[in-house]
Amino acid sequence: MYCGICHSDLHQLKNEWSNSIYPMVPGHEVVGVVTEIGSKVEKFKIGDKVGVGCLVGSCRKCENCDNDLENYCHDMILTYNGVDTDGTTTYGGYSDIMVTNEHYVVHWPENLPMEAAPLLCAGITTYSPLRYYGLDKPGMHIGVVGLGGLGHMAVKFAKAFGTKVTVISTSVSKKDEAIDHLGADSFLVSRDPDQMQGAAGSLDGIIDTVSAIHPLLPLINLLKTHGKLVMVGAPEKPLELPVFPLLLGRKLVAGSGIGGMKETQEMVDFAAKHNITPDVEVVPMDYVNTALERLLKSDVKYRFMLDIGNTLNKS
Amino acid sequence: MYCGICHSDLHQLKNEWSNSIYPMVPGHEVVGVVTEIGSKVEKFKIGDKVGVGCLVGSCRKCENCDNDLENYCHDMILTYNGVDTDGTTTYGGYSDIMVTNEHYVVHWPENLPMEAAPLLCAGITTYSPLRYYGLDKPGMHIGVVGLGGLGHMAVKFAKAFGTKVTVISTSVSKKDEAIDHLGADSFLVSRDPDQMQGAAGSLDGIIDTVSAIHPLLPLINLLKTHGKLVMVGAPEKPLELPVFPLLLGRKLVAGSGIGGMKETQEMVDFAAKHNITPDVEVVPMDYVNTALERLLKSDVKYRFMLDIGNTLNKS
Repeated sequence: MYCGICHSDLHQLKNEWSNSIYPMVPGHEVVGVVTEIGSKVEKFKIGDKVGVGCLVGSCRKCENCDNDLENYCHDMILTYNGVDTDGTTTYGGYSDIMVTNEHYVVHWPENLPMEAAPLLCAGITTYSPLRYYGLDKPGMHIGVVGLGGLGHMAVKFAKAFGTKVTVISTSVSKKDEAIDHLGADSFLVSRDPDQMQGAAGSLDGIIDTVSAIHPLLPLINLLKTHGKLVMVGAPEKPLELPVFPLLLGRKLVAGSGIGGMKETQEMVDFAAKHNITPDVEVVPMDYVNTALERLLKSDVKYRFMLDIGNTLNKS
Repeated sequence: MYCGICHSDLHQLKNEWSNSIYPMVPGHEVVGVVTEIGSKVEKFKIGDKVGVGCLVGSCRKCENCDNDLENYCHDMILTYNGVDTDGTTTYGGYSDIMVTNEHYVVHWPENLPMEAAPLLCAGITTYSPLRYYGLDKPGMHIGVVGLGGLGHMAVKFAKAFGTKVTVISTSVSKKDEAIDHLGADSFLVSRDPDQMQGAAGSLDGIIDTVSAIHPLLPLINLLKTHGKLVMVGAPEKPLELPVFPLLLGRKLVAGSGIGGMKETQEMVDFAAKHNITPDVEVVPMDYVNTALERLLKSDVKYRFMLDIGNTLNKS
């Protein structure tokens, strides 16, 4: 079994969101092989490659569930650090085995490497808003703020949709990486007012992956009339929202959180078709604490991938 | 000629936006009768009732102008306190005569009273976002924050679209007015946490007309999944935007500013058809300073209307 190490694992391990339940088994970017199935399972058979993302349950009765938006169900059950219907704590993918209701499991395409598991969080989190907010039209110009686990996936999906992509980052050191390696068309240093002013009014939409407190005005100024700034990072404190610039261009600031099961399957299939995979550093399970420390320092391009069974060394 | 007294007149008279050009003739809710036309005028003839709103010029070449969104043209010329193409200052409707390019003039429907001039700012400012953001579908549940010049028009349009309307105000004293007089379906006191919590997740969209600094979180909490909070008031300072609640429900905070000429005509025709008129207190021109003082104290329901030629006393 493979499991990506997501930033939210760090937050929850350290109880930074004040909702941690211990003992905790993190991990919500999980890919593995079916070893056993229940008697009523219809979607899967033993030996299938499958994936589990951020959720393992929802009410199945509300309007959101009816519309394949289990991720917005108020009774959504998180893959780990959640409370299951029987009152037990859910445990995630830093594990060699996992039991999940088939509704919350996706088929993993044959040609998609199992190490691409971060598609199940970083992938869907960026794919879904590009789709929902209509930022997936060829020829559009899309900005991606922040070049980490989420940001690098946003660049890859946006390019696959045929849009022109500008990466916006505080650090000029990421320019070559963004353009040469990830295929972005251009790069803006957000702390350079001249560069930002030169690109004012040029973007149809922005996917903002930054979780730290940061100013929105420079990003809003980059948008064309009707431009959309979509937040997928979750700063702990409120950000400053200047209202007048929104009025002047009928612009909007929106949010998006992961995706429903139907769309997650669609995203995985799209990634397989277009050869879109996250850049990962595969590490064995006993490296997990070191990996978490390095993640804290952003010392990874772009996701650590736990090879739980040490499969690569065995093969 | 009739001209509404808008809050922005106050701001600009006092140079609160630091962009005032003196001498100033305010007024951008203007209705009058054509007394003279240029040789190339095609839309109007002498004697026609016409209206002029917030803008009297734009570039006519940009994408926004091409799409009948002159209000978002970067070279839009404001009806007053603006700079015209010839470099002169524009003067507004606190006047007995006005010269305007026909493109920025609307036909005033016969059955619409001339005192309904505030449709040209307060009306279009609320009509346009209800339309553009899809908050005009019968059966939807719409919130209106603030019950002033803009807010009371938002209620009337939202009701005419067949939506259920909840007025949200800091002041319980406006409840009877909102429900009995304006026809709102319900009322929430924004400072009452229990009331606000009881209505959580109930609204498809909100038109927020408040220009003062105010918290957005309680409003975002009122929205359903995919709900839209649309700002039409313009607070001078940034507001606090909590991001996580946007992510959890794929919600958005957006802006909208007045409307284009085509939509302004459509709005006026819609108002005439549905008997939608602003509530006004008609006053003579020599009352203007008193009216401005009373407006500052919100002592008007809901707009002062200058009867420039003192027509009502003459007739």
